Amino acid sequence: MKENKDVVRNWKAKLHEIIYEADTPTGKWFDISLIFLILVSIFLVILESVESFDQQYHDFLIIAEWIITILFSIEYIARFLSINKPFRYVFSFYGIVDLLSTIPLYLSFIFPGSQVLIVIRAIRLLRLFRILKMVKFIGEARKLKEALWDSRTKIAVFIFTMVILSVIIGTVMYLVEGKDAGFTSIPKGIYWTIITMTTVGYGDIVPLTSLGQTIAVIVMVMGYGIIAVPTGIVSAEFSKQNKLNKIHTNTQACPNCNAHNHNDHAKYCYNCGNLLNEA
Amino acid sequence: MKENKDVVRNWKAKLHEIIYEADTPTGKWFDISLIFLILVSIFLVILESVESFDQQYHDFLIIAEWIITILFSIEYIARFLSINKPFRYVFSFYGIVDLLSTIPLYLSFIFPGSQVLIVIRAIRLLRLFRILKMVKFIGEARKLKEALWDSRTKIAVFIFTMVILSVIIGTVMYLVEGKDAGFTSIPKGIYWTIITMTTVGYGDIVPLTSLGQTIAVIVMVMGYGIIAVPTGIVSAEFSKQNKLNKIHTNTQACPNCNAHNHNDHAKYCYNCGNLLNEA
Amino acid sequence: MKENKDVVRNWKAKLHEIIYEADTPTGKWFDISLIFLILVSIFLVILESVESFDQQYHDFLIIAEWIITILFSIEYIARFLSINKPFRYVFSFYGIVDLLSTIPLYLSFIFPGSQVLIVIRAIRLLRLFRILKMVKFIGEARKLKEALWDSRTKIAVFIFTMVILSVIIGTVMYLVEGKDAGFTSIPKGIYWTIITMTTVGYGDIVPLTSLGQTIAVIVMVMGYGIIAVPTGIVSAEFSKQNKLNKIHTNTQACPNCNAHNHNDHAKYCYNCGNLLNEA
Amino acid sequence: MKENKDVVRNWKAKLHEIIYEADTPTGKWFDISLIFLILVSIFLVILESVESFDQQYHDFLIIAEWIITILFSIEYIARFLSINKPFRYVFSFYGIVDLLSTIPLYLSFIFPGSQVLIVIRAIRLLRLFRILKMVKFIGEARKLKEALWDSRTKIAVFIFTMVILSVIIGTVMYLVEGKDAGFTSIPKGIYWTIITMTTVGYGDIVPLTSLGQTIAVIVMVMGYGIIAVPTGIVSAEFSKQNKLNKIHTNTQACPNCNAHNHNDHAKYCYNCGNLLNEA
Repeated sequence: MKENKDVVRNWKAKLHEIIYEADTPTGKWFDISLIFLILVSIFLVILESVESFDQQYHDFLIIAEWIITILFSIEYIARFLSINKPFRYVFSFYGIVDLLSTIPLYLSFIFPGSQVLIVIRAIRLLRLFRILKMVKFIGEARKLKEALWDSRTKIAVFIFTMVILSVIIGTVMYLVEGKDAGFTSIPKGIYWTIITMTTVGYGDIVPLTSLGQTIAVIVMVMGYGIIAVPTGIVSAEFSKQNKLNKIHTNTQACPNCNAHNHNDHAKYCYNCGNLLNEA
Repeated sequence: MKENKDVVRNWKAKLHEIIYEADTPTGKWFDISLIFLILVSIFLVILESVESFDQQYHDFLIIAEWIITILFSIEYIARFLSINKPFRYVFSFYGIVDLLSTIPLYLSFIFPGSQVLIVIRAIRLLRLFRILKMVKFIGEARKLKEALWDSRTKIAVFIFTMVILSVIIGTVMYLVEGKDAGFTSIPKGIYWTIITMTTVGYGDIVPLTSLGQTIAVIVMVMGYGIIAVPTGIVSAEFSKQNKLNKIHTNTQACPNCNAHNHNDHAKYCYNCGNLLNEA
Repeated sequence: MKENKDVVRNWKAKLHEIIYEADTPTGKWFDISLIFLILVSIFLVILESVESFDQQYHDFLIIAEWIITILFSIEYIARFLSINKPFRYVFSFYGIVDLLSTIPLYLSFIFPGSQVLIVIRAIRLLRLFRILKMVKFIGEARKLKEALWDSRTKIAVFIFTMVILSVIIGTVMYLVEGKDAGFTSIPKGIYWTIITMTTVGYGDIVPLTSLGQTIAVIVMVMGYGIIAVPTGIVSAEFSKQNKLNKIHTNTQACPNCNAHNHNDHAKYCYNCGNLLNEA
Repeated sequence: MKENKDVVRNWKAKLHEIIYEADTPTGKWFDISLIFLILVSIFLVILESVESFDQQYHDFLIIAEWIITILFSIEYIARFLSINKPFRYVFSFYGIVDLLSTIPLYLSFIFPGSQVLIVIRAIRLLRLFRILKMVKFIGEARKLKEALWDSRTKIAVFIFTMVILSVIIGTVMYLVEGKDAGFTSIPKGIYWTIITMTTVGYGDIVPLTSLGQTIAVIVMVMGYGIIAVPTGIVSAEFSKQNKLNKIHTNTQACPNCNAHNHNDHAKYCYNCGNLLNEA
């Protein structure tokens, strides 16, 4: 009896190693094939949305989607069983995403509403974020995040200023241009302001009066200047990071206390006062 | 009699503390609820501009706007009464904005012109700038402003060059393309040039001749290069700020040899090995 | 007789001082009123191009233009007379621009072709460049020019790469999309590529096939990345300038030979080997 | 007999020198005339694609193209003959491009399909890349490449994030807007997302519902922020390069105390006052 339990425990530990870790060969193989399956599944959803393709290969698409859904279901159950505290997984972010990206096809039996089905199916795309877990190991992703995080207050001030500006300019344009030019409401004016300020410029709403076009010109030049701000923030942040990394090029270590990060001109250890070896 | 005066003075001091300062709990609470009220009022103006919404909830919007206007009126009177030199407030920028954002609804009784009313109501949006007072405390807003201010001559030269360029190119395009392509006047040509140079590109006015399209291509590449200038200015300015901040972070000097630029965790001088004073 | 010559010489010297120099009060006054006149003249040309305005104030515009033209003629003659080598002025860049911006209205008597007249009149706008002479004195304009000049090889490589890319992509799009989508020739394809790469995006020519749209997406992302290159070049150049300026913050001077620009950690003069004073 | 061989060998060596090297005057002359010929050939292809021009000068264009094709054929044969291992050239990248840019006109005899011909002719444009070989010698091109290569992981993370974002947003917009607004399939949604995020903004597909326009606004602001990332990366990279170059410009070390980082004009060591060796 005890032996049987041990077998189960072993089997569980092995499954856990394969599913949750990426260090062992089988764990790596599992992760790569999972990512491949997610990509195929997303590709199928994209193809299904192309009407001409869907009409020709409808049956194939349905069968392929069912196979992938069943594989995802098995994966979900395996994840649930192989962990000691399964409900911590179930209520984690990835646990919920895993469930939501598996369930819609089953639900279509009980509630035969194909349109609704497609909506929920889109959430499956969020699975792509799981792949980001791998990218995390590349230190650069962390650096990008850090650079953005370090400048979060700057970015907040920037977005806040843009929101206020776009509300005021949007209202002014709504009053100046009015309904003939497509500025049917203040939200439409704000929509136009953002389109113009970010230099997207669809041209679906466009000022027609001289005054409106003059304001538009000012908004464009302003937007052109404003684009410099986030770019400047991130550039400076990256430059700082490069510089901080440069400090680590001094690899001198104190022969007494092994302290690092000495000044380039240091003769004595800053930590214990011991004489440093000549570089 | 004197006691009565003291009561008034106390009451006035308390009101002043609540309205003009944000340090005490009640002062903070007042500022936050004021911002909330401003946001609600702006939101109502935006909703009222959406025709379908206005038709359904016209009465509700009118009542809500009246309530907010009355609250703003009380606030204005309180600000007027609680300060010792009330007219300094009345003629300050915020004093004028406060009045202008309160008055339009009252004016609508004497001059029943609803269209005009909406125009003045838009100024109420300027109240959002008051919230910026809070943001000011975040040092980053100051930094942003400083970076822009330090590069004001560069920006002036840049804008001046852009204005000259757009006038010349706008005239050339007016001559080359003419009225068929929508270049009905030189101002329209300038409008098109700014749209193209800032890479907005609405597509409402577009060159049709080969020569016009060739000029357009040159303008686009030029605009693409020009965008680098404000970005470069701001980036360099932020980099400088980062550097200056880094230098000022450690002002420790060795009590023996007066060496500077010690590491943040330094206990001993890197130059002479002497013990440093605790920071 | 000699006295008379002296009077002429004096009068000539005075005129030269007023017209060609900006240091004396009268010289400054002359330059400012000239710039004002040029701006008014440009403004009139712009207003004349607006049909509705031209129909109402045609006579006024014609008279105003004649007055300005006569004033410019007087200025041209004065410039010619007050200089010792007048033909060096006549064949200089500004001399030619001055003549070309004065002559068209006179020519309209001999050749009564108003349309042609307007074309030449546009050159008068080039006079705006003369104002740049003043801006030159602001050191920032020089810095901007230096930053661009220092990175001229980088910019050349960049533009060369963009030209090659746009020719190849333009040809591919011409073959893929063809005449239905507006890609009627390779130049049109190149025009579209530049519009897309510089993120202008008029929308006058737009890919219709799936393959064309896929290529368009690649071009857009590429253009998005390419925009980073000129920006990066100019940013780095400005940063370098800021840094070079920073070096001058060490104001130590050798007490022996008065050499400047010592290292921050320097104890001895790099020029004469003398001990430096403690900073 | 042996003499004859020597003559051939000499002739081969000379031809090799002219064709493959650019150091000798004849080699330089050959390269420049080849580049000129390529440019003319590309220009002719571009002109031929302009229908109005082609109808007028069809015969001239055909003859000019045949002359250039024959010259390119001779060049190809010469390249083949002058090298010792000719097949290493044939299967090199430039060998294949040379063949592909020469062959189409000959093929048109066997398969008289002029349309197909034009498609292959476009590959001839790739010859332009050969010119890049010359540019390589300008160190800046190498710097640009290095800066991009050094930040390859950052760029990869960036593109990966953009692809995921555009797939998710594209799907959401397909569900929100549907076929009426032109979002006929998920790929169309992705196409729209890239157009919006890169701030190109054609306006061929545009959101019509309030929800869609709200999402569009978020995507635009996001894209506006995202543009900062590649720019920041490249800027920081260029700044680093500028700095590294500055450091390496002076490698002088004091012969007495071995101090580094001397000024460019230093004669004496800043650390010990010893005379420095002449650079």
